[in-house]
Amino acid sequence: MVRVDLNSDLGESFGAYKIGCDKEVIAQVTSVNVACGWHAGDPLVMDQTIALAVENHAAVGAHPGFPDLLGFGRREMKVTPAEAYSYVLYQLGAFSAFAKKHGLPVQHLKAHGALYNMAGKDPELAEAICRAVKDFDPEIILLGLAGSRLPEAAESLGLRYASEVFADRAYEEDGTLVNRKKPGAVIEDESLAVERVLRMVKEGKVKSVTGKDVDVRADSICVHGDGPKAVAFTAKIRKALEDAGVEVCPLGEFIC
Amino acid sequence: MVRVDLNSDLGESFGAYKIGCDKEVIAQVTSVNVACGWHAGDPLVMDQTIALAVENHAAVGAHPGFPDLLGFGRREMKVTPAEAYSYVLYQLGAFSAFAKKHGLPVQHLKAHGALYNMAGKDPELAEAICRAVKDFDPEIILLGLAGSRLPEAAESLGLRYASEVFADRAYEEDGTLVNRKKPGAVIEDESLAVERVLRMVKEGKVKSVTGKDVDVRADSICVHGDGPKAVAFTAKIRKALEDAGVEVCPLGEFIC
Amino acid sequence: MVRVDLNSDLGESFGAYKIGCDKEVIAQVTSVNVACGWHAGDPLVMDQTIALAVENHAAVGAHPGFPDLLGFGRREMKVTPAEAYSYVLYQLGAFSAFAKKHGLPVQHLKAHGALYNMAGKDPELAEAICRAVKDFDPEIILLGLAGSRLPEAAESLGLRYASEVFADRAYEEDGTLVNRKKPGAVIEDESLAVERVLRMVKEGKVKSVTGKDVDVRADSICVHGDGPKAVAFTAKIRKALEDAGVEVCPLGEFIC
Amino acid sequence: MVRVDLNSDLGESFGAYKIGCDKEVIAQVTSVNVACGWHAGDPLVMDQTIALAVENHAAVGAHPGFPDLLGFGRREMKVTPAEAYSYVLYQLGAFSAFAKKHGLPVQHLKAHGALYNMAGKDPELAEAICRAVKDFDPEIILLGLAGSRLPEAAESLGLRYASEVFADRAYEEDGTLVNRKKPGAVIEDESLAVERVLRMVKEGKVKSVTGKDVDVRADSICVHGDGPKAVAFTAKIRKALEDAGVEVCPLGEFIC
Repeated sequence: MVRVDLNSDLGESFGAYKIGCDKEVIAQVTSVNVACGWHAGDPLVMDQTIALAVENHAAVGAHPGFPDLLGFGRREMKVTPAEAYSYVLYQLGAFSAFAKKHGLPVQHLKAHGALYNMAGKDPELAEAICRAVKDFDPEIILLGLAGSRLPEAAESLGLRYASEVFADRAYEEDGTLVNRKKPGAVIEDESLAVERVLRMVKEGKVKSVTGKDVDVRADSICVHGDGPKAVAFTAKIRKALEDAGVEVCPLGEFIC
Repeated sequence: MVRVDLNSDLGESFGAYKIGCDKEVIAQVTSVNVACGWHAGDPLVMDQTIALAVENHAAVGAHPGFPDLLGFGRREMKVTPAEAYSYVLYQLGAFSAFAKKHGLPVQHLKAHGALYNMAGKDPELAEAICRAVKDFDPEIILLGLAGSRLPEAAESLGLRYASEVFADRAYEEDGTLVNRKKPGAVIEDESLAVERVLRMVKEGKVKSVTGKDVDVRADSICVHGDGPKAVAFTAKIRKALEDAGVEVCPLGEFIC
Repeated sequence: MVRVDLNSDLGESFGAYKIGCDKEVIAQVTSVNVACGWHAGDPLVMDQTIALAVENHAAVGAHPGFPDLLGFGRREMKVTPAEAYSYVLYQLGAFSAFAKKHGLPVQHLKAHGALYNMAGKDPELAEAICRAVKDFDPEIILLGLAGSRLPEAAESLGLRYASEVFADRAYEEDGTLVNRKKPGAVIEDESLAVERVLRMVKEGKVKSVTGKDVDVRADSICVHGDGPKAVAFTAKIRKALEDAGVEVCPLGEFIC
Repeated sequence: MVRVDLNSDLGESFGAYKIGCDKEVIAQVTSVNVACGWHAGDPLVMDQTIALAVENHAAVGAHPGFPDLLGFGRREMKVTPAEAYSYVLYQLGAFSAFAKKHGLPVQHLKAHGALYNMAGKDPELAEAICRAVKDFDPEIILLGLAGSRLPEAAESLGLRYASEVFADRAYEEDGTLVNRKKPGAVIEDESLAVERVLRMVKEGKVKSVTGKDVDVRADSICVHGDGPKAVAFTAKIRKALEDAGVEVCPLGEFIC
């Protein structure tokens, strides 16, 4: 049976600042990426987010980012691999304490924003992130962008790896995402997006922005939780997958 | 045989900012309280400090503080018990990841600065800290001020507890420290301080600032590492203890 | 003619975090308290908030707070008067640069949250804040709680002072606010609240929680901007004042 | 008469963290670049640093950096020009409040670390920094690296500009600094360094790393204050300049 995970970045509120429709999204997804207090999130929010995941039978993972709350971790920072290693290990450890409290294992780790993007292109950064994961717990799955440097690094260190795809993004011929600044980078038509997701999951293929069929491994689909529209879209994707006989379940149940 | 621990707050450097004679002090102490990146310390410093502890056969513990780097965690902040719980759990988790990497167990936790002082007087804060420790790992020893609310909280939750004394501080009749603002709060005479330490460790007694003998439990002696003078004083204390037949060893070896 | 100011704390968004209905509220008020990047706000938000004030013909003032973004500046921090002085001067200077860019004078300064509350009770803190204002520009009006230590400090330093009242809060017999934890602290009935505001502005009197008439100086009414209900309530207050022949205008036009 | 300024980055301590030999260096230099609390420094330190400048008859300028205390502002951060503009304006405003308190004008602004280096290469960033300076006060001198994008931006906006050189660094043929990672980037021989400084100041020429004479405009010499050796070297440079009949004085006295 074909299986796929739905993941979303949640727990991004900070102190008095509320962001995201966590309660609504978490009912739809199977894996939650929990912000770890550096680019977003705080200890109380982490605690509450994981409690919410328990209630909704979702698996949880750490979602570490750059020390840049002001930029929401979206701005490139030229950190050394040693810095990246220690930042990831720190945030993973902090996250794991809350997971432990709630009796959940740390299923996965997915880097956030600019750290995710930079590590996707820079083998040394990718290796630093994977090494932090491995040193902490080699059972943790690394969740990363299909076709980036992250799967290579995970493989070379013997970590389990899951490849994520985006429902609303166009792909280049080499399997990478079309840059958001280019026209056509975002798939606006929801029905088309759902159709593409189904094909990526069932056939492992997606039509690139140039019209060519591209191989893509879709272990997980990244969905957004930043508004009611995103929540409705996620529900639509989930329903389409289930209607097509795909089992939607957490990464930990099928990645090996 | 009489046994005692020597503990010191280390790993307080931050980025380009270096503070403390960590290398020199760590050779003298048996337990290291590692700053966890909130009031002091950063992930790289935590990593290096624990590596240093490994080299010097010292045990390590988490040293969480308030989110106040500017005030070095020394300023009272009116946090709720729920906030204190989550702040301690967060920092303890982060610390534990580095301890794990270096193959060391988390021996103990000692709160820092204003958090330590406030929890010493406020049973709810003390309980919040102890609960975070217990939820994370009930084997961790809580290190706290003799005669404060912290031992009570630890006991009521079934945590192991270690009581620390200060070589250079005067005591009130009720076993609490004389406020630093009062005259005579600090014992300036090093020989007298060493003598007092020996008596606290061997007899469990100290002469209060009013001249009365007071019971005090000295599982660990807190020593400073902020300068060459502090390092020399620590060496003097250690030598005096060993000459008197006291075994100086980490808390974990004798607290039960 | 009776005149009164309406003030609101705005510009509290931070990076990706949006908070408050600034655009709607700013159309109703005459003075804007702009967060200065410590407890809330950031440089881009400060710039945009002052631009919005210009468009809406509102006056602006600095709204400095504690270095506690995580607690939104609402938690007491035991800072020294020297620290408070330097924190206020820093934030006031930063704010003034944006006001200058937009061609607006710094009309007033109002401390935020816990700093405001602590200074209201602590003469040394109140004096530190006022001294920072005076050293920067003695023309700036200090906006503070009626009956607190702030007016005393402002007067003793020769600063202009404006006293603010709250539409939705009950008062004690001594003119201070009823603690939020006590029953009856908040006036839920909007019509009653509006009535009370009118009486405070026109007669300088308010009925205390115990039923006694209390003198209160109402130079400005503090209104909230955290939701559509707050915005509608503010519009109602403004209309009632104007219908009653009160001129609603910025502090700078009538405080001397 | 030939005149030159000596500038140094000071006021980089933060809270309990002390860095730099400010007291010793400030006696040797004529212009002080004061850290503004983002990459280093804090409000109390800013206050003390400017007080020290007053005592030592040194001029002061703002030294704004990235919001990266952990990285001391030395790590590239991909900020937008709008962000850079607002960050510089914020820090400049904050700094100016302390300068005003001490009765000193804001003589100049020099960006710090990665912001300085990035703006040196990126015309949009350079323009954003210069625009912030101009919007705040068009009399402020922009201090920047000889041969970088900063002088161009300053000129095009009509700002006064001062070009700084480094005593201990080698130059490429195009007048830029040899990258620190390349061999020969740092001039280790102090006598040679002093000789080069004299020639840069008196003749406007320096021998590049390839042996060719290069034109360089030396309005100010940047010296370090991070240790006793640096202080001694600065004193040596100053003495050599004075012995050679060069007048060492603040930028504001000769830049037009």
